[in-house]
Amino acid sequence: MIRVGIVGATGYTAVELLKILLRHPEVSVTAITSRDPNTPHLSEVHPGLRDQLNLNFSQLDIPNFCESVDVAFCCLPHAASAEIVGQLVDAGVRVIDFSADYRLNDVETFEKWYGVQHPDAARVGNVAYGIPELFRAAIKEADVVANPGCFPSSALLPLAPLLKADLIQAAPIIVDSKTGISGAGRKTNLKFHYPECNESISAYGIGTHRHMPEIDQIIKRFCGTDVETVFTPHLTPMDRGILSTIYVQPKNKTNASDVMDCWNDFYKDEIFVRLSPDLVATKNVSGTNFCDIAARDSRGTIVIVSALDNLIKGASGAAVQNFNVMHGFDDTLGML
Amino acid sequence: MIRVGIVGATGYTAVELLKILLRHPEVSVTAITSRDPNTPHLSEVHPGLRDQLNLNFSQLDIPNFCESVDVAFCCLPHAASAEIVGQLVDAGVRVIDFSADYRLNDVETFEKWYGVQHPDAARVGNVAYGIPELFRAAIKEADVVANPGCFPSSALLPLAPLLKADLIQAAPIIVDSKTGISGAGRKTNLKFHYPECNESISAYGIGTHRHMPEIDQIIKRFCGTDVETVFTPHLTPMDRGILSTIYVQPKNKTNASDVMDCWNDFYKDEIFVRLSPDLVATKNVSGTNFCDIAARDSRGTIVIVSALDNLIKGASGAAVQNFNVMHGFDDTLGML
Amino acid sequence: MIRVGIVGATGYTAVELLKILLRHPEVSVTAITSRDPNTPHLSEVHPGLRDQLNLNFSQLDIPNFCESVDVAFCCLPHAASAEIVGQLVDAGVRVIDFSADYRLNDVETFEKWYGVQHPDAARVGNVAYGIPELFRAAIKEADVVANPGCFPSSALLPLAPLLKADLIQAAPIIVDSKTGISGAGRKTNLKFHYPECNESISAYGIGTHRHMPEIDQIIKRFCGTDVETVFTPHLTPMDRGILSTIYVQPKNKTNASDVMDCWNDFYKDEIFVRLSPDLVATKNVSGTNFCDIAARDSRGTIVIVSALDNLIKGASGAAVQNFNVMHGFDDTLGML
Amino acid sequence: MIRVGIVGATGYTAVELLKILLRHPEVSVTAITSRDPNTPHLSEVHPGLRDQLNLNFSQLDIPNFCESVDVAFCCLPHAASAEIVGQLVDAGVRVIDFSADYRLNDVETFEKWYGVQHPDAARVGNVAYGIPELFRAAIKEADVVANPGCFPSSALLPLAPLLKADLIQAAPIIVDSKTGISGAGRKTNLKFHYPECNESISAYGIGTHRHMPEIDQIIKRFCGTDVETVFTPHLTPMDRGILSTIYVQPKNKTNASDVMDCWNDFYKDEIFVRLSPDLVATKNVSGTNFCDIAARDSRGTIVIVSALDNLIKGASGAAVQNFNVMHGFDDTLGML
Repeated sequence: MIRVGIVGATGYTAVELLKILLRHPEVSVTAITSRDPNTPHLSEVHPGLRDQLNLNFSQLDIPNFCESVDVAFCCLPHAASAEIVGQLVDAGVRVIDFSADYRLNDVETFEKWYGVQHPDAARVGNVAYGIPELFRAAIKEADVVANPGCFPSSALLPLAPLLKADLIQAAPIIVDSKTGISGAGRKTNLKFHYPECNESISAYGIGTHRHMPEIDQIIKRFCGTDVETVFTPHLTPMDRGILSTIYVQPKNKTNASDVMDCWNDFYKDEIFVRLSPDLVATKNVSGTNFCDIAARDSRGTIVIVSALDNLIKGASGAAVQNFNVMHGFDDTLGML
Repeated sequence: MIRVGIVGATGYTAVELLKILLRHPEVSVTAITSRDPNTPHLSEVHPGLRDQLNLNFSQLDIPNFCESVDVAFCCLPHAASAEIVGQLVDAGVRVIDFSADYRLNDVETFEKWYGVQHPDAARVGNVAYGIPELFRAAIKEADVVANPGCFPSSALLPLAPLLKADLIQAAPIIVDSKTGISGAGRKTNLKFHYPECNESISAYGIGTHRHMPEIDQIIKRFCGTDVETVFTPHLTPMDRGILSTIYVQPKNKTNASDVMDCWNDFYKDEIFVRLSPDLVATKNVSGTNFCDIAARDSRGTIVIVSALDNLIKGASGAAVQNFNVMHGFDDTLGML
Repeated sequence: MIRVGIVGATGYTAVELLKILLRHPEVSVTAITSRDPNTPHLSEVHPGLRDQLNLNFSQLDIPNFCESVDVAFCCLPHAASAEIVGQLVDAGVRVIDFSADYRLNDVETFEKWYGVQHPDAARVGNVAYGIPELFRAAIKEADVVANPGCFPSSALLPLAPLLKADLIQAAPIIVDSKTGISGAGRKTNLKFHYPECNESISAYGIGTHRHMPEIDQIIKRFCGTDVETVFTPHLTPMDRGILSTIYVQPKNKTNASDVMDCWNDFYKDEIFVRLSPDLVATKNVSGTNFCDIAARDSRGTIVIVSALDNLIKGASGAAVQNFNVMHGFDDTLGML
Repeated sequence: MIRVGIVGATGYTAVELLKILLRHPEVSVTAITSRDPNTPHLSEVHPGLRDQLNLNFSQLDIPNFCESVDVAFCCLPHAASAEIVGQLVDAGVRVIDFSADYRLNDVETFEKWYGVQHPDAARVGNVAYGIPELFRAAIKEADVVANPGCFPSSALLPLAPLLKADLIQAAPIIVDSKTGISGAGRKTNLKFHYPECNESISAYGIGTHRHMPEIDQIIKRFCGTDVETVFTPHLTPMDRGILSTIYVQPKNKTNASDVMDCWNDFYKDEIFVRLSPDLVATKNVSGTNFCDIAARDSRGTIVIVSALDNLIKGASGAAVQNFNVMHGFDDTLGML
């Protein structure tokens, strides 16, 4: 049994992570932490877990924590995460980090887009990016894995093989993404107050969303291509799910059918990426670690649609998949 | 008082139309028809109208109908509509037609996209297109107005002035639209069964949706520009509202601010198109005849977002606005 | 034109009130206030009202305010309201108060259930309760009207005539109510964070909700009957609407049909209470000032179902109806 | 491995059943049937199961089917089910039947409420009712288990122990239930068309719902008490979940705390019934086999609230729990 701790376990990704880990036959959850000393009991914070886990929140004490766990899932906000990840690693704990702190290729880009100084700059650029379908070898050996952003996962899984195979042009790439409200996290904000966002769809962060450089840099890392994606996220009135509609221009005479062939080849051994002849829907992947992808032709443009659950394949499921890869388990352990 | 009849009054656009007309100080609703002789009483079909209208469904008998009305709102499906519109006009009734039958510029395009022979081909291309902000003069004099499609309205209102002013390139134009489920009409279909489409977003009709040629042809008609929009509609889990996210390439150094200036000038006398410095949301226009529009820069691409209520500005509100224009009333009569 | 001001105009009831008043032919809105000096511009607080009202928030200055208005709609929280209502009245302004401050019959009950000292105790018990269908005469003459609670309206409209006619027993009366989330107001709270309450229904405030004594006391005031309703509210995943399912025991052999007859007689001249032979639904009254009611027999128990829009007939529509009654206008002015 | 077949596998309960069975370590799904020979491929009918199950729909051929399975889950409509269950049993297949055909105690009641002749009358009254928490011994030995109705489960789990312990009165018992729309099944109907039931709550089947006699008869069977529950279901705008608010009268001085004690004792070894000090919500049990229950005092009435997922503890989870009991497995196998 691998002893697992969750740092910052009060949010939506943590509760989904706990649900998966409780089913995982090789995992024992031994610590969950919260930064707020007044955090209520686990059964009040996550009533869905009532009676499921004989454990309660503690505040993070690094030596104690590191003695009780082999692996840490770190669910802290950006910058806060990088302040402790190094200490965990130094104490021999492998880390899967949900924050954006170690996703980018260089500190400059991080500091430009996140507006804070990076607390652990030396590590940036040397951390495995946690999409096993693209970076399996690096993840296997990693002591820290940067769990990917939810939007980038939905864009990178369909785009990366196509750019690597040189089937599509590097520009323009338009990623029009729609996310359920849980993507905004669990902190209250008038924007996510039920009567404000129910029965409404709206765009936000046009030209300014931090997942834009993440998509670009991971494509660069994966296949060397320079891209500048035009990424627009939308707030959709549903709990969970991301649908990304991606508009790309073919090279030569590539069409949607060639795109499907390329994916078919690239993902033939990957269980969590599913090619769909029908158009995909977030409902079909809700609560699962699948990413469904499909392609269509539209007047010379190739229109790609991908669907995943932002809390699972876009966060906690991907994290467990990374965990499985790091330990030589089957990718699906605890999830299928 | 102008006597008004509604042909095909059992659906969602008809009930919204009735709600507006009941408030209209210059209108008396004198006939509502249904093609099904077994249609239940109005208060069962539209329980929201209980006790509001002392009238019930009849089957369309053209001579009787034409004696009792001055204006007909025709809410029949395509092809069915064109079979009766001519007869109504010949009897001296002015018609506002909700179907697609008279929206396009030529019969060939209609028959290609709709897959049926046009029952009233001679009239096609000679009918006013019912966006008063673009075609006010033609609507004023018209005996038939083609009420516009909901998606085209959301695309044409922001795009038409920019193309006319030559601020943006004619290609590529990508229109990524999200609609509430009422856009699918009131006929049952597993796709629109609540548990199928709730908590899910999905694309449909990629490259094949009939509103795509409508957008192109009306732009051509309005400013002579040839465009081939790449249009993708999405089914969004909400009752009503359309949000269109439109990606265009600037000419010269046009940016989002220039776009706002152009709209500001073009729409300065139009009350139902609102320029928004903030990003728009369908909730803000729900139940109203407003179309809110905004623009942003994203890495050289101009991203336009428009929001309207598919049943009001996208259908019944636009129809009443057309009615008002046809009769020399203020555009807002019955609506503000 | 009657000059109207709204005190505390940043919430959901205020925006609905403004929408109705902007349509009202006898009203000019001349002042809107907010207690927070940092309140953004009206078009940011209520983007649905963009370009509709040439007015912005001010802080309440009573002498200035009273010079500019004839009638005040007061949308402040309980206790805060009673601190200013007296001053407005003394300055000759008639007040329609949305708070609970003047709804109850006695100060003791108020202070017990609301846990604060009443700032204007002398007035309590002498204020017209704002359901015109029950207290029209008192409202007509009133200088202050206590606008009713949303849940009490949904219970009192069906119950009051039956208790007055002695058709049902005074105990037990069970009121099981379901409300849309806008009923919780616009202040953020984790409970009303979209992903917490979407796709979920839950009961709250069992045995402790403040609308329980309000129902009891207004029944007592209306027909002298002592009742102790068992009232349970539920949070329902929708923006607006209240459905109350009410379980009562008949006297003698009263059945659902007798109940319908009683209502039919009592409400024959009231346009906003609609008797429905079919079971009612909140959708049918959404955005309207109607309260739909129906009754059924179930094993000797009479089951009553009432539906209203909590923001309209449960708040702002009722307020305008009261305003109309106070000024001798038709109840429906501005609303139908 | 136990070979399992599903008869009538195109609906919502079947897909949830398949998801659980695919995770069950002791189950191999060997047959799924559909009555419609034109049923599309499994991956089109249930796109969420794409690539998960190497099997497709066949039409039921009883000899073939019985050779390939040890246990059948029968998801047919009432009456259709009873026409084949006997044949399956005769061929040595144990059956878990989702229909209402074998739930009641006598044929007369069945025929009165369901309006059809029972095709297998002799078996009625001799079939284990599939709530393991109440009828574990009978289920263990059964060749046919009647899987319970979703509403009855939500009422019986809290009520049965209290009536058995004589803590509450047998009348009146009011069960006010709220269900997600998936409870209506997957057959299209205007009532469940998204724009009809979204953003709306309504009661239906008052005094006439078939789950009413089921509740009564199972209470009679469990503890001999005659009850006549007043049951009112409501359609709630969410995919899944049932919340039942139950109003009972105490015997002696029983209060909510005594109720909790009684449950605590009765359910101390039952993992799927969770006692909640906080009020329950359907969200907390969504996708799980838990039934959460809580109690409160309200003016002498005891108000009980229970929450379960209508498709899991209200259908397919209960079925697998029954399956586990029948085979001597831990109740939770495949589910936790």
